[in-house]
Amino acid sequence: MTVKNAFYAQSGGVTSVINTSACGVIETARKNRQHIGTVFAGYNGIIGALQEDLIDTDQESDDSIAALRYTPSGAFGSCRYKLKSLEENKREYERLIAVFEAHNIGYFFYNGGGDSADTCLKISQLSETMGYPIQAIHVPKTVDNDLPITDNCPGFGSVAKYVAVSTREASFDVASMAKTSTKIFIVEVMGRHAGWIAAAGGLASDSQTELPIAILFPEITFDRNAFCRRIDTLVKEYGYASVVVSEGVRDAEGKFLSDQGLTDAFGHAQLGGVAPVIASMVKQDLGHKYHWAVADYLQRAARHIASRTDVEQAYAVGKAAVEMALQGENAVMPAIIRKSNNPYQWVIEKASLDQVANVEKMMPRDFISEDGFGITEQCRQYLEPLIQGEDYPPYQNGLPTYIRLNNVMVEKKLEPFDI
Amino acid sequence: MTVKNAFYAQSGGVTSVINTSACGVIETARKNRQHIGTVFAGYNGIIGALQEDLIDTDQESDDSIAALRYTPSGAFGSCRYKLKSLEENKREYERLIAVFEAHNIGYFFYNGGGDSADTCLKISQLSETMGYPIQAIHVPKTVDNDLPITDNCPGFGSVAKYVAVSTREASFDVASMAKTSTKIFIVEVMGRHAGWIAAAGGLASDSQTELPIAILFPEITFDRNAFCRRIDTLVKEYGYASVVVSEGVRDAEGKFLSDQGLTDAFGHAQLGGVAPVIASMVKQDLGHKYHWAVADYLQRAARHIASRTDVEQAYAVGKAAVEMALQGENAVMPAIIRKSNNPYQWVIEKASLDQVANVEKMMPRDFISEDGFGITEQCRQYLEPLIQGEDYPPYQNGLPTYIRLNNVMVEKKLEPFDI
Repeated sequence: MTVKNAFYAQSGGVTSVINTSACGVIETARKNRQHIGTVFAGYNGIIGALQEDLIDTDQESDDSIAALRYTPSGAFGSCRYKLKSLEENKREYERLIAVFEAHNIGYFFYNGGGDSADTCLKISQLSETMGYPIQAIHVPKTVDNDLPITDNCPGFGSVAKYVAVSTREASFDVASMAKTSTKIFIVEVMGRHAGWIAAAGGLASDSQTELPIAILFPEITFDRNAFCRRIDTLVKEYGYASVVVSEGVRDAEGKFLSDQGLTDAFGHAQLGGVAPVIASMVKQDLGHKYHWAVADYLQRAARHIASRTDVEQAYAVGKAAVEMALQGENAVMPAIIRKSNNPYQWVIEKASLDQVANVEKMMPRDFISEDGFGITEQCRQYLEPLIQGEDYPPYQNGLPTYIRLNNVMVEKKLEPFDI
Repeated sequence: MTVKNAFYAQSGGVTSVINTSACGVIETARKNRQHIGTVFAGYNGIIGALQEDLIDTDQESDDSIAALRYTPSGAFGSCRYKLKSLEENKREYERLIAVFEAHNIGYFFYNGGGDSADTCLKISQLSETMGYPIQAIHVPKTVDNDLPITDNCPGFGSVAKYVAVSTREASFDVASMAKTSTKIFIVEVMGRHAGWIAAAGGLASDSQTELPIAILFPEITFDRNAFCRRIDTLVKEYGYASVVVSEGVRDAEGKFLSDQGLTDAFGHAQLGGVAPVIASMVKQDLGHKYHWAVADYLQRAARHIASRTDVEQAYAVGKAAVEMALQGENAVMPAIIRKSNNPYQWVIEKASLDQVANVEKMMPRDFISEDGFGITEQCRQYLEPLIQGEDYPPYQNGLPTYIRLNNVMVEKKLEPFDI
């Protein structure tokens, strides 16, 4: 086995643990110097490969790489950029091969979601289609939790924990205020296509700490009357209610609820979220005082409240990706396979990329309660293990000491390339 | 000294550490059984006193009371209810005296902000004006940090820490995405009258971790052109920018920016925050892709990321309130007095309530940078000690185990009272 260098890149929306996977990749590669030379990281994802903007991770100390384990965001920059097919844009593939060849790259690690799995699959076929020897391994990541085969996706567990903890805390708050003030609290969470993140709000309420929570899933067509009836029932029973609403909730015509065609006093279009829309309905139909929040990036960047399970899995898939490469694998993804719920046990197994790319895993209907506003016991058993454990970053002066790498660029050997 | 019972109530918006002060009051009273009998807590604040809805805290175990230290929200319920003056509503004062007399209450502890200090002052004057012997002590609490004399207010430090940590995390996130996607992240925080909370966003950037952050303070009249110029400069230098905007920002006519007279496609009024308004401006004037968040209750309920300094001070003012009562004080408030910045040292001293009630402490202009978009070194030195240290709650199954008390009601002795 000759020594080849590796390329690693981050793709799509970042998470609080995508750098943990980078840490797993780089630390494992460093332990296998006899097979893997340098890990080059793509500056801003795959764009870095196309433009020969390669970061030399050997210029970072072991301590700096170790600090990636607890640093949210994408340390090398990420991008939203989907490679076209070989037929549509052969020029890009030729460029990638030129860059790989120039830097003796034989391993390609791509850390992302569904689109990235597709890109990774295309790269893996370069050996076959264009005769360039490369092994491409996809490292799963997405807060949306929508990759198939893997039981769950690194990044999701920490968002789920953030949403569950925040919903519990805010519910305690509104319960205190309900007598004379706010009775309804609404929090908008991510998940345009699938309700996995919204479902995590349901964990805030459990047998020891029961809370009146209604969830609005993108999988369930929004019915204003049914929703307001549900809230009315909760307020009559508990005196207050919390609502966790997915950004992707749609009405009967399939239109996003957030897309209300809002205009300001001057007629200018304004961009709102779905939370204020729900708040206005509660006010109009039930007359209750409300507060609303939109978590947005705060939820996926919240490394301070990461799930330890998620951190461990994010590291494990990074490590396994390198091990699979060393075993000669190509076009695979390390998948998390659940062995049991209680105690929670999981292992990493390899999944074939052609079964992963372009397949979206939706929430099963039986994870959502019959009335459409809650999670079932089955959903709870799936979700609960994923938020187990805490994994606090180190703090200095009251703030987490997240690392910023030096990101030393490798000297270019090729002509510039326009994308 | 005869044994008298005590009354304790929570007032106004709750915080992640107001229960910590309750814990300080009740634990200290329990250690002084020879002087203080039972602590009765007002169910939903002062309304509980008026309606004789008294919670018998003796029915709670020492462990349950200890758990209040790490439980956010108001464990006994809070309310927004301001007593009128004696001249305007003598009936309410007579009722309070009747309730106090019926339950042998000689100590009144009121945990709140500016309005509550005013109420507490009025109660303290009952001895003088109506001949009922009572000692009223105000326990400071407000995320707004606007009480005078005390160096800072319990509740504020934890919100400040939440805002600083979240702004740092989200800034790392947007930095990763800026190449091909989001360039501007906007987070809306509380503080309708004063910019203390928004200022805490400035702490996210420090000498070790420099971040491009612009702050919009309620103290500074919003100037769209100046703001967009500032953002443009930051994006040109760093490639991205984060904006921390106070809900209370106003335009040159004194109108809240959030109050845009929004209407939906059907002409119905919609209630928006200020974050989406700022986002729309950034889009219109600079063309950048943005994301926005509204923290709302999440920030003041976020006990999971509380400041240890804040927790210690919240407990200390509760404890000191009881000690002052035992020393025979009336119409006072335990105030936090800063002795030095580095090392941070503070003591509790008593402040006279007539100097506290109805006085609002604003941010000094020299805490805001000359251009109006940042904090000065002086502000940083004031804020930094307040977010020092972490104080994590215990977790079970991935979630914090916040306590809910039994809240056993005392048997009523009087006729009902309408408020």
